[in-house]
Amino acid sequence: MTETDPRLAGYQKWEGFDPFEEQSGPFYFKEEGDGSYRCAFISESKHMNGQGAMHGGALMTFADYAMFVIARPALEGISAVTVSFTSEFTAAAGVDEFVESTGEIVHETGGMVFVRGTIFSGERTLLNYSGVLKKLRSRT
Amino acid sequence: MTETDPRLAGYQKWEGFDPFEEQSGPFYFKEEGDGSYRCAFISESKHMNGQGAMHGGALMTFADYAMFVIARPALEGISAVTVSFTSEFTAAAGVDEFVESTGEIVHETGGMVFVRGTIFSGERTLLNYSGVLKKLRSRT
Repeated sequence: MTETDPRLAGYQKWEGFDPFEEQSGPFYFKEEGDGSYRCAFISESKHMNGQGAMHGGALMTFADYAMFVIARPALEGISAVTVSFTSEFTAAAGVDEFVESTGEIVHETGGMVFVRGTIFSGERTLLNYSGVLKKLRSRT
Repeated sequence: MTETDPRLAGYQKWEGFDPFEEQSGPFYFKEEGDGSYRCAFISESKHMNGQGAMHGGALMTFADYAMFVIARPALEGISAVTVSFTSEFTAAAGVDEFVESTGEIVHETGGMVFVRGTIFSGERTLLNYSGVLKKLRSRT
């Protein structure tokens, strides 16, 4: 697949460079028009485990990426780190699937953003996840 | 670093080939002599996020690997899949750290293995995790 894969029409990548996400994805996101976000990537053989199914680490890395995309409305100009992450693996995935994630901000405080979402391929839910991001304040 | 890095003396890799683990690691394990296992990898720039700290996905991929190593005594000849995974990120890590993981089997049933562990670099705990693996029975 290439970045011109028609399934990725309207999607974009982060402006910055994230080495582990670039190698594990690449992952993409788009704004849905209502303020929410959707993330996607196309699975390749490099995302598989020794049994030929998508590696749990690939799904969780995509989920970690998606949490930061979903939390964007709460993180304007603020960087953040993942504090906790919880997930259930509900189905397997193979190569050349269009894997997506949507979710929501469950709650936001001055210091934290609580997020939940799912990763899915078509009608099949692959991962249910939730996590907490901690906002990092500038020390200047 | 190379596989001859002295910090990896006594460690080995899986016999099979796991594309996502190979690209995300490589990860290593060794038997401790008492039936328990220890896992390790050496962090590189490819494991970092856009802020120059180790990506959460890299830590969780290593944890997923480590859960299967820790569960080995319960999985002789049985393959398994991750059903759930929970973690807390307790500290950041950088490049060229010797990152290790140890843990234990909390409970085993006919169908599942409950595992918990930590990932650490020296005295610094990076990730606290637990998860459930489901044993896959042969259909023959």
